[in-house]
Amino acid sequence: MNNIKMFRDSIDEKLKRYLPTVASKHHEEVLEAMKYSFAIGGKRIRPLLMYGAFKMVDGSYEEYHCVEVFMACIEMIHTYSLIHDDLPAMDNDDLRRGKPTCHKVYGEANAVLAGDGLLNYAYELALKETINVGTKDIDRSKKLLEAMSIMASHAGIYGMIGGQAADIKFENKEMTTKNELDYIHKNKTGALIRVSLIIGGILGGGSVKQIEQLKVIGNNIGLSFQIQDDLLDKYSTKEVLGKPIGSDEKNNKKTYVSFVGVEQSKEDVKRLLNESRLQVEGFNGDSTLMLELIDFLETRKY
Amino acid sequence: MNNIKMFRDSIDEKLKRYLPTVASKHHEEVLEAMKYSFAIGGKRIRPLLMYGAFKMVDGSYEEYHCVEVFMACIEMIHTYSLIHDDLPAMDNDDLRRGKPTCHKVYGEANAVLAGDGLLNYAYELALKETINVGTKDIDRSKKLLEAMSIMASHAGIYGMIGGQAADIKFENKEMTTKNELDYIHKNKTGALIRVSLIIGGILGGGSVKQIEQLKVIGNNIGLSFQIQDDLLDKYSTKEVLGKPIGSDEKNNKKTYVSFVGVEQSKEDVKRLLNESRLQVEGFNGDSTLMLELIDFLETRKY
Repeated sequence: MNNIKMFRDSIDEKLKRYLPTVASKHHEEVLEAMKYSFAIGGKRIRPLLMYGAFKMVDGSYEEYHCVEVFMACIEMIHTYSLIHDDLPAMDNDDLRRGKPTCHKVYGEANAVLAGDGLLNYAYELALKETINVGTKDIDRSKKLLEAMSIMASHAGIYGMIGGQAADIKFENKEMTTKNELDYIHKNKTGALIRVSLIIGGILGGGSVKQIEQLKVIGNNIGLSFQIQDDLLDKYSTKEVLGKPIGSDEKNNKKTYVSFVGVEQSKEDVKRLLNESRLQVEGFNGDSTLMLELIDFLETRKY
Repeated sequence: MNNIKMFRDSIDEKLKRYLPTVASKHHEEVLEAMKYSFAIGGKRIRPLLMYGAFKMVDGSYEEYHCVEVFMACIEMIHTYSLIHDDLPAMDNDDLRRGKPTCHKVYGEANAVLAGDGLLNYAYELALKETINVGTKDIDRSKKLLEAMSIMASHAGIYGMIGGQAADIKFENKEMTTKNELDYIHKNKTGALIRVSLIIGGILGGGSVKQIEQLKVIGNNIGLSFQIQDDLLDKYSTKEVLGKPIGSDEKNNKKTYVSFVGVEQSKEDVKRLLNESRLQVEGFNGDSTLMLELIDFLETRKY
């Protein structure tokens, strides 16, 4: 667990360096808003999963820089989605990780633009990296393009945004089947988690079969993560969680927990993570980080 | 002029085909919102300028498909920026091109997501095209990457989003110098117009010198476009403009017109477009479309 914390602190510093630096007084407020929300980002689960998958497929030291760039990109995309999700027009949340949300500090207009800015900057960054590699190394350049494309499709209307759209649609509505909830989980939370593992695998030079396995592990971890979020929203405290609990109930949101019950939910988290452990152990690379991450996820309190 | 209209109608149909098609009932509202706003987009100036620049550098028929993809991308980015700009937290506009704005029809949450979805989809689309070209044609693939990267930087915090950020910052504030207004124009409106010409030039295989010239033309056209917008906001009618006039005054916005006066503004539009004409005529490719576009821009009423 301490390894995770140490590692997270070290990548935290690295990832922040990828944010745009202030260049003009004209737009500095939005830049500050981007940095503010990125800094309160928290667990850095997605970049850590990406790096864990990279190690599992035995990614080489030469490729490390590429994966670090994509770790920053995925965290930017995640942060933008939180900023927009917290807006009054969406979930209307005032607190995140114990700090006021972006629009509470910088105003709604700046928060909309800060989200837009982070999403766009993720592509700016990944494209710059791909061009830098350029034709010097066709193979690496192909991998970067593939990683970027798969990141884009998972972040978009057929991935995360689709999940958020469904989430909004079903708010205050009685869902008839768990099918609809599954769609939300698979996309809203699941897509970015899944694609983090996939990208780690691609950049590390994993085989097609390995990428397929990483996808399955990503799905299991993504779902377990969402179930835990639902449980924490019900049973954690505002102090530990860094935001008010009970927001799902307040927003009349059907959750995994309200569908299958608390005990079954807890069992499902255990089962999904145990399945993941078994799958991870089948890889020939270094699985230490991924297994530690799974341990951390199983017992996380926030 | 009629040529422009005919041409616009024909590309209009083509560009719409690049939008995502409905795949799931879970997210159909956001998809509809994306399509709705794309459909009321209007003049398609940016794609037309891109194609005009492509012809000016004698872009070949084989490259046409690539440029069409980027024409769709740039219009998606433009449309997303309008959707977010119209939000109550931003300019709070109810009408655009005579139709209710996105959030008036689909609600604010869906409008935020529809904007996010369009921005992200522009990259999905351009990346898919680049991967399709792949290593079959390294030269074309390099051009696509370069076009995508330059599109991203012009759309981002150091381009359009930066301009929007400055625009918000100075709303309801007395600006001290025209320098600040120039920054807003160069970025908020100028960046996407400028990059449309640059991309047309890159994809058409223009020389470094030609791309530099297209950049200058793009700056002139971008600024003249903004001055005209300011004039139209003051002197057009709601019926012709498709939205209420006088919004700059209502929002206490300093404009080019309020800085230099009406007569000087009109003269500057003429001067900027005449300069552009001269520069366009120096190109060896087919400049007919670009010259017609400049004529259209000079006399546009909306």
